[in-house]
Amino acid sequence: MTHTLNPADPAFAETLRAALPEGTLDQASARYLEEPRGRYAGQTSILAKPRTVEQVATLIRMAGQARVGVIPYGGGTGLVGGQVATGEIAPLILSLERMNKVRAIYPDENVLVAEAGVILADVQNAAQEADRLFPLSLAAQGTARIGGNLATNAGGTGVLRYGNTRDLCLGLEAVLPDGQIWHGLTRLRKNNTGYDLRHLLIGAEGTLGVITAAALKLFARPAKTGTALLVVESPDAALKLLSMARGLFGEMVSAFELIHRQGFDFLTETMPEVRQPFATPPEWCVLVELGLAADMDPQGALETLFEKASEEGLVPDGLIAQSAAQANDFWTIRESIPEANRRIGSVSSHDISVPLGAIPEFIEVGGARLAQMGDFRINCFGHVGDGNLHFNVFPQVGRSRADHENQRVAIKACVHDLVHELGGSISAEHGIGRVKVADLETYGDPAKLSAMRAIKAALDPIGIMNPGAVLRR
Amino acid sequence: MTHTLNPADPAFAETLRAALPEGTLDQASARYLEEPRGRYAGQTSILAKPRTVEQVATLIRMAGQARVGVIPYGGGTGLVGGQVATGEIAPLILSLERMNKVRAIYPDENVLVAEAGVILADVQNAAQEADRLFPLSLAAQGTARIGGNLATNAGGTGVLRYGNTRDLCLGLEAVLPDGQIWHGLTRLRKNNTGYDLRHLLIGAEGTLGVITAAALKLFARPAKTGTALLVVESPDAALKLLSMARGLFGEMVSAFELIHRQGFDFLTETMPEVRQPFATPPEWCVLVELGLAADMDPQGALETLFEKASEEGLVPDGLIAQSAAQANDFWTIRESIPEANRRIGSVSSHDISVPLGAIPEFIEVGGARLAQMGDFRINCFGHVGDGNLHFNVFPQVGRSRADHENQRVAIKACVHDLVHELGGSISAEHGIGRVKVADLETYGDPAKLSAMRAIKAALDPIGIMNPGAVLRR
Repeated sequence: MTHTLNPADPAFAETLRAALPEGTLDQASARYLEEPRGRYAGQTSILAKPRTVEQVATLIRMAGQARVGVIPYGGGTGLVGGQVATGEIAPLILSLERMNKVRAIYPDENVLVAEAGVILADVQNAAQEADRLFPLSLAAQGTARIGGNLATNAGGTGVLRYGNTRDLCLGLEAVLPDGQIWHGLTRLRKNNTGYDLRHLLIGAEGTLGVITAAALKLFARPAKTGTALLVVESPDAALKLLSMARGLFGEMVSAFELIHRQGFDFLTETMPEVRQPFATPPEWCVLVELGLAADMDPQGALETLFEKASEEGLVPDGLIAQSAAQANDFWTIRESIPEANRRIGSVSSHDISVPLGAIPEFIEVGGARLAQMGDFRINCFGHVGDGNLHFNVFPQVGRSRADHENQRVAIKACVHDLVHELGGSISAEHGIGRVKVADLETYGDPAKLSAMRAIKAALDPIGIMNPGAVLRR
Repeated sequence: MTHTLNPADPAFAETLRAALPEGTLDQASARYLEEPRGRYAGQTSILAKPRTVEQVATLIRMAGQARVGVIPYGGGTGLVGGQVATGEIAPLILSLERMNKVRAIYPDENVLVAEAGVILADVQNAAQEADRLFPLSLAAQGTARIGGNLATNAGGTGVLRYGNTRDLCLGLEAVLPDGQIWHGLTRLRKNNTGYDLRHLLIGAEGTLGVITAAALKLFARPAKTGTALLVVESPDAALKLLSMARGLFGEMVSAFELIHRQGFDFLTETMPEVRQPFATPPEWCVLVELGLAADMDPQGALETLFEKASEEGLVPDGLIAQSAAQANDFWTIRESIPEANRRIGSVSSHDISVPLGAIPEFIEVGGARLAQMGDFRINCFGHVGDGNLHFNVFPQVGRSRADHENQRVAIKACVHDLVHELGGSISAEHGIGRVKVADLETYGDPAKLSAMRAIKAALDPIGIMNPGAVLRR
């Protein structure tokens, strides 16, 4: 059951203008119509920048009355086109950028209440000023806004220890598709009063409502941090090392990131200013971070891990950071790899996850199948402790992504088919957006898809909320 | 929009019998019609005990065709009547007790896959045999089944460190109200592919489908454990102590349970065999447990905490367990309090939560308001680190709960009104069931309630799944 939507035209803008404070509406400038990879461009449209949840409710209610689609807009850093309406009837772009206040912070409760438009780095900083940690951490944190992080259930490097964004949220304030305000901004740790609307809106990518504020979990800041780059013989050895590290340090293992030699080589090729820690980059290594209690010794802990892993033949070599500067160098490598990838230009990039035990098979079989399709460079890296790998396919030196444009669809299908065979996910941390709608239809569970469609139709019968994202209209 | 349901009568039983293996159907014996507090009794009815998810799907599909209500039944330990249909048209009782296999365990992935009918203690034991921890821990664990724990999003003593039941689940297999099987038994840590149906079914108390199996998170077992009973001047001091403990030991604070003098007194009165640790029970104390890494010293850690807290005037006295036996004694006190309460017989008991910072006000104002209503004994205890208190009201010595029966409703309203004023929850860990349906209508957010009703109508249009639970029919 699809309903035709109307465009956000000048007449609609006039109606909105009459109902909202001056300056709320504008024409959407180019940056609201782009996305980071430059693959899609949105339609020229109207931009609304409300300052309060009541104004958001007015906008949604009026959009429903006029049957105009609404795209909730955060920092615009999403990688699956959830923030860009392509080739459709022009929707209203609803930016949360002016709802950018940290409303309250409760250090003794480990809770921070932020509006949806607060930039992720500002949430982190506000927590730090209260001697607390907000552990969501990802490359786009200087631009991404917390509402978008919630809408997409963002992942990042802190998931291993602290969970996905949904695990960091206690309560939400949101406007539902019918314009009702849900006042669900609870700071409670336990609250079993009916269906969990919070988890339904988180990860729904703005298709079931607009998140306007959230009560977020904070944590004690680990008193001491230890960082190491440990060489491993194989992805399988990396997993055994993780298991060993958790046996020794439990939840204090804060990060466990896999890096392939290709990543170091891309840095050499495109970002020679990044300091390389190994004279010869190893085939595989992991960046391990421990966040420890005050009376613990991080270097001693990492030495214990290194020795034990060496004895069992898992780790032939490694570097334990001897200073904060050196730890920072290690992280710079990990965090520069996405930029190096961008400079090389991928033919196809994949944000996938598989069960931890299936990672070695995925890497081996995936590499072999792609080798049959052509001569590529593969940069496989990422949050191996979460089973989440970025498995990105690049042209060989001297060729460009344009040379392989006609293979892009087949490469993607090859990787996603394998992920599906292994019980994995074709979108680990980026979401579905508009880019993966067809993939979700292909690989998604039919019962789940039918439930999703029923829920969407029930909560948003006209289909105004982020039309075309997640589910096909 | 309410649809009339038909009773699970002999004709319906015949239809089912023809479609299912012999022995699947039975008459429901008394134990399926009772609940632990003895306040409600269910209707005589048919009992189905399927062995496979396909059989569950057949039952649900046929119940839908016949418009017969279905009550999913786990261990029967719920405290809000979610498992007992009172005074309604006899439903089919669908017990998961024969789906009681641990299907697989993946120690290196920290994952265990269990069918819904596995008893919680058996899940814990299977994890332990693999040198892992399944941290869900609650009084009824010898009887409760994991499917029921998931359906009700059970809480317990492990929430502080490891989260509620929903936080311990990676994937589900379930039968939706239309009889479709959702194969969502993923072991993935990151999976952003559409609406989170898992979190919608968890905590829905069987009203949106039947959970038949789950992929559960395991954890490394803390290598060393330290336990202490620390006297605190007030609930406020308890919260400051928690904050201090987390500053020192982060997530390694495994339990933090508040105990009031009334609890010790009830034990003396009804269970004199329980060893009392204090010559004179303190007004307030907390049971603290630290679960530490291998190279840490639990007693030293607790001494550090005690000294620091003493210096700041938070903890005047305390006992640090010197042996496993003594730690066990401390836990026996905490775990015997609910039984002592049962023997005394409460006028009204409340499973509530408030924001951590509001706990002192809740206890003070709640006590004062109740004192105006009559002369009661209050036993306030529980998971203070989660803001979850069991605030239970008892008659004075020489009187019985029957003497106050006419005050029960007013007492409950008094407590719940205060909880609501403070931004708390009228059901922290037990759920809504049938007992709190009216409370949810009174205190619930209208937008959330309307979304819940829309979701229920969309997924279960005939209303066969656990009719009358959570939402009024």
